[in-house]
Amino acid sequence: MLPVQLIRQKRDGGALADGELRAFIAGVTDGSIPDYQVAAMLMAIVWRGLDDRELATWADAMTRSGEVIDLSRIARAKIDKHSTGGVGDKISIPLAPAVAACGVAVPMVSGRGLGHTGGTLDKLESIPGFRVNLPVARFAELVDQLGVCLIGQTAEIAPADRRLYALRDVTGTVESLPLIASSIMSKKLAEGIDGLVIVCKVGSGAFMKTLADARALCALMRAIGQRAGKRVTCVLTDMNAPIGRTIGNALEIRESIELLRGGGPADSRELTRVLGGEMLVLGGVARDAADGEAQIERALADGRALEVFRKVVEAQGGDPRVCDSPGSVLAKPAHREPLALPPGRIVAIDSEALGLAALVLGAGRQKRDDVIDPAAGLVVDAYLGEVIAADAPPQIVLCHNLGAGDPRVADARARIERAFTIQPADQPFAPPPASRVLEVLR
Amino acid sequence: MLPVQLIRQKRDGGALADGELRAFIAGVTDGSIPDYQVAAMLMAIVWRGLDDRELATWADAMTRSGEVIDLSRIARAKIDKHSTGGVGDKISIPLAPAVAACGVAVPMVSGRGLGHTGGTLDKLESIPGFRVNLPVARFAELVDQLGVCLIGQTAEIAPADRRLYALRDVTGTVESLPLIASSIMSKKLAEGIDGLVIVCKVGSGAFMKTLADARALCALMRAIGQRAGKRVTCVLTDMNAPIGRTIGNALEIRESIELLRGGGPADSRELTRVLGGEMLVLGGVARDAADGEAQIERALADGRALEVFRKVVEAQGGDPRVCDSPGSVLAKPAHREPLALPPGRIVAIDSEALGLAALVLGAGRQKRDDVIDPAAGLVVDAYLGEVIAADAPPQIVLCHNLGAGDPRVADARARIERAFTIQPADQPFAPPPASRVLEVLR
Repeated sequence: MLPVQLIRQKRDGGALADGELRAFIAGVTDGSIPDYQVAAMLMAIVWRGLDDRELATWADAMTRSGEVIDLSRIARAKIDKHSTGGVGDKISIPLAPAVAACGVAVPMVSGRGLGHTGGTLDKLESIPGFRVNLPVARFAELVDQLGVCLIGQTAEIAPADRRLYALRDVTGTVESLPLIASSIMSKKLAEGIDGLVIVCKVGSGAFMKTLADARALCALMRAIGQRAGKRVTCVLTDMNAPIGRTIGNALEIRESIELLRGGGPADSRELTRVLGGEMLVLGGVARDAADGEAQIERALADGRALEVFRKVVEAQGGDPRVCDSPGSVLAKPAHREPLALPPGRIVAIDSEALGLAALVLGAGRQKRDDVIDPAAGLVVDAYLGEVIAADAPPQIVLCHNLGAGDPRVADARARIERAFTIQPADQPFAPPPASRVLEVLR
Repeated sequence: MLPVQLIRQKRDGGALADGELRAFIAGVTDGSIPDYQVAAMLMAIVWRGLDDRELATWADAMTRSGEVIDLSRIARAKIDKHSTGGVGDKISIPLAPAVAACGVAVPMVSGRGLGHTGGTLDKLESIPGFRVNLPVARFAELVDQLGVCLIGQTAEIAPADRRLYALRDVTGTVESLPLIASSIMSKKLAEGIDGLVIVCKVGSGAFMKTLADARALCALMRAIGQRAGKRVTCVLTDMNAPIGRTIGNALEIRESIELLRGGGPADSRELTRVLGGEMLVLGGVARDAADGEAQIERALADGRALEVFRKVVEAQGGDPRVCDSPGSVLAKPAHREPLALPPGRIVAIDSEALGLAALVLGAGRQKRDDVIDPAAGLVVDAYLGEVIAADAPPQIVLCHNLGAGDPRVADARARIERAFTIQPADQPFAPPPASRVLEVLR
């Protein structure tokens, strides 16, 4: 196999044979194909795409480029969830224990936050002692015993994706549906799952700007899953506002525990219920989505989900008292500064701007090696369509450990103020849909 | 300037600003843009192309990436010739002295052979002592004194092209008309010329397979030249057979000297006359092409061209006796093996196959650092449309220094036999055009 011949073939719009695709990914994995040839191939794929058969082989070769976790000794169905990332998205944390409480195992491998979006691993690590780097054997053991374990991607999982992703980032080849789909699916298929629920965010603040793009991406991910013999359900959700009422790591753990105690904001509660319901359907323990949703609601309401989470925290080295008194266990910010929005109706919320405001306060990373302040973030008690009265109490709280005159605080305030579009309450306004769920592709 | 943003812009079909193009080429030249980003940009250009303004700027930035030779103190017009490469193409060697003999200076920077095509430098070096690596100052001096000097590309000329070309070769990004046009023109515009005649070969054995492709490439090269204030004439020629009667370095010098003595095969003579005529028109010493051709014929016939060549050989360190008795000066092969074609009419000749047969015998390079045997090659005394009688003397002579049982000799023989398509003499046959010149774009 001469890499340059494969590049030329793809450049000219031809399809590559399965053996050629596998040889190329093998060369990506062992480093024998230099960066410049990988980069040229990636751009040729952005240009010409991959057909269904090529995409399935490419993704499968990426999956097999490293360790594929074997969970076959666990009898229960093993279902994971993946999300394309959103501001305030802590849903994995209440979701995984709730699903496990209903009898479906959740082997969850999550990522870290970068830019305006947070990462589940960073949120979990704000629980003192919580360890996300467990050996694969211990991961499998906990999935078996507790029904759930939450870890980070290991160096052994899909190493081809790691090299490809690093190159895509610097060569303008991120924005390709087959490359996005294979990157996501290769990592998930290496987890030893039977099925997967994918949340694909749609909107100006999301990676997929239009419903058509999101549907196209989901179709590719579902096709990859099908060819690998896995059931994949995609849930398209609207990113017209941050998810829930908190942005920032310890703050989001607090909201997660409220959800696990049967409370929490309506939108994050809906997402937990809907995604959990779909996971139970895939796992074969619910007749249909409605039945699955009802089971999830019960597990959240009667404390079974919280009990699973307590055991997971304890097993992964964290302080389980976080479940009972999060305020005494989680890091607290030195400063909590209120910010009041001007009176009127909130007609648009720029989630990305709010995510970046939280990042500026210390809750996120601009670069991969930036350090996160677990206590930093925002409480946002303002929803789309809400009318703010002139004498209302402040809707936003900035949480941080920055000094009094630190310019980053003023920067964050300015970002928050710009994030809200407010118009007079008596002007016409089309209320947003009651549900964030746009479509479910089963 | 962030290279990844420029790559994304080009990927999405946008045009790059002049400053962006110049910054990118500067980063290519100083090495600050890594190979993988250059490779991704090249593939994006193969995909999206460059518009006329972008192409002119890109080529100009490549030209200025290194030294631009200043020949302004030479009063005569300075005209060079470039050819896209062909089997048996030794035309530069009789052409340059003939044009110089007619009063136009020829500052000629040539290349080496690779694959099935030979290179002018390799041919010149088969003259014992001939040096093609002269300092630029000496080059300018000889162009001034003798009207011609023949050197190889120095490291100082268009270094951006050298890096781009090396990457294009291994990333499947050679086949792009704007990249080909800018590569050729950037080097030629760095020679300090006033005008240029480009020979673009067309046909199955040539780089440009169709007349349409060749016209498109020529249009781009002419546009680059115009924007740089240089006149460019393109001559499209048919590559339906090797040029002349010899393939191989010392053999082609012999044919060149025959041409300089007023003889030589009809086709190489026609090409020398036509290209020379166009150069004299560009140089302002001929009224029109017919006048230019007549002047070239006279310079070849009356020995003035040969006298210029003798001085060039002497000035560049070679043995000038090659002009009088090439047989005693040039390397001779240990073996000259005849090969007779089967009787019938030659209806097709695969030039590339003949070029590769000569290469196998030692006349060419497969890789850049292969060593050439100057004595090796082929004499091919068979033309397209010719009828070979059953008792005719052998038409081909294989010249080599290989051992008696060396498998390369059998390999070369097999390639030669396959290169000729011969049909019964009484079958209908449309004779090829009398001239190899298909079109002249002035």
